[in-house]
Amino acid sequence: MIKLSEISTEAPKGLEKKDIKKKTEKLVARLGELHHLMYAEGKYSMLIILQGMDASGKDGAVRNVFRECTIAGLDLVSYKKPTEEELSHDFLWRVHKWVPQKGMTTIFNRSHYEDILIQRVHNWIDMERVEKRMAAINAFEDLIQFDNNTLLFKFYMHISHEEQGIQLQQRLDDPSKYWKHNEGDWKERERWNQYMEAYEYAINKSTTPWHICPVDNRWYRDYFMAKTIVEKLESLDMKLPQLEK
Amino acid sequence: MIKLSEISTEAPKGLEKKDIKKKTEKLVARLGELHHLMYAEGKYSMLIILQGMDASGKDGAVRNVFRECTIAGLDLVSYKKPTEEELSHDFLWRVHKWVPQKGMTTIFNRSHYEDILIQRVHNWIDMERVEKRMAAINAFEDLIQFDNNTLLFKFYMHISHEEQGIQLQQRLDDPSKYWKHNEGDWKERERWNQYMEAYEYAINKSTTPWHICPVDNRWYRDYFMAKTIVEKLESLDMKLPQLEK
Repeated sequence: MIKLSEISTEAPKGLEKKDIKKKTEKLVARLGELHHLMYAEGKYSMLIILQGMDASGKDGAVRNVFRECTIAGLDLVSYKKPTEEELSHDFLWRVHKWVPQKGMTTIFNRSHYEDILIQRVHNWIDMERVEKRMAAINAFEDLIQFDNNTLLFKFYMHISHEEQGIQLQQRLDDPSKYWKHNEGDWKERERWNQYMEAYEYAINKSTTPWHICPVDNRWYRDYFMAKTIVEKLESLDMKLPQLEK
Repeated sequence: MIKLSEISTEAPKGLEKKDIKKKTEKLVARLGELHHLMYAEGKYSMLIILQGMDASGKDGAVRNVFRECTIAGLDLVSYKKPTEEELSHDFLWRVHKWVPQKGMTTIFNRSHYEDILIQRVHNWIDMERVEKRMAAINAFEDLIQFDNNTLLFKFYMHISHEEQGIQLQQRLDDPSKYWKHNEGDWKERERWNQYMEAYEYAINKSTTPWHICPVDNRWYRDYFMAKTIVEKLESLDMKLPQLEK
């Protein structure tokens, strides 16, 4: 049973930023190689889900961690407010159609979890529907793993309330960041505790485990994510197809 | 626990073909009205799954039962051998993208059940995968019902081995039916008992119940399907949107 308030949002004590950044660089390069191997072999696929509060560094993680990956093998899908057409279907319809085919990697910036997060926090749905949707999510995530060799990574971008305030304020103070400013983010920030409760529910009820990624130090975030993915991919024994003699 | 061999493939004794055909005509007209209401109201959607052996009358049922339905509100998706792209995804990917949006009716001529029928009978997958897929099917069918007001009708087109032989032979004897002839259908017919076993498994493990539709008498097939759907739609109290005064 995970309690988010008991998990640090910062890099573990004793780590040197400079040292970690060097290691991250190697990991990111290695991820590029492994990703190419996955693409060329066409046996596995990979789905990376990024969920977290506003300003928790999802965009930066995409930019930094995957920068050495083969573009042809990488898709990014950002989930915003559902369209009319999406709302006329079940909540998984808009995500299922973008799951990666064999060989491909897809990053979801936000995901189907929004349908039990923002929708729950605003009481657009009741707990009975939250529970049914959670069961549907578990079945869906099972499906893509057992039936399509999909490696599923779910990262909860764990930011502190204080750090979120700093990041949101920077968007007002720094003209180069103003384009990311959204008044609505400050309104959602007022519901912080409700969001934490909704996230804890999602994390604890998931059958596929989450990675809780501390993001207050952005250099540690990148290291954590790259390391998590590389370690899994290294364990797979992927091989480039070879000409049979 | 349903045993297909214990259920008649013929019209119940005592029914008059002429009488039933008259009733079917009324039901089909009523289905047209109710379907229009569903389309106009935009609250429910309807998914009709037709599964059955070759020559069990799926195409004829589509033609006869839905002929009064508003074309704009009706889609037909026929599932054949999966494409390369479909095979590079989980087995539900190609069906989930075509589920009806609110107001719409979609007919699946064959469906995701093929992935635990033909694939099982030919031993392309093992029983462990059949069981996992069955669980995924149940979760998927739950999802579209609870999260999108989808009315789900699953018809097993129950034909006798003898009648199938007659129907397949007609395709060879009648030049107007020759276009439907497919040598492969005769090969599949040799696996009749295995198919029956696979169908019984699918029918008995489904959480959403099936309608076992006797099809040896085509006039009864149409009546059975139209009656089943109309009775459900009549129970819904659908209303045309009205101008609010």
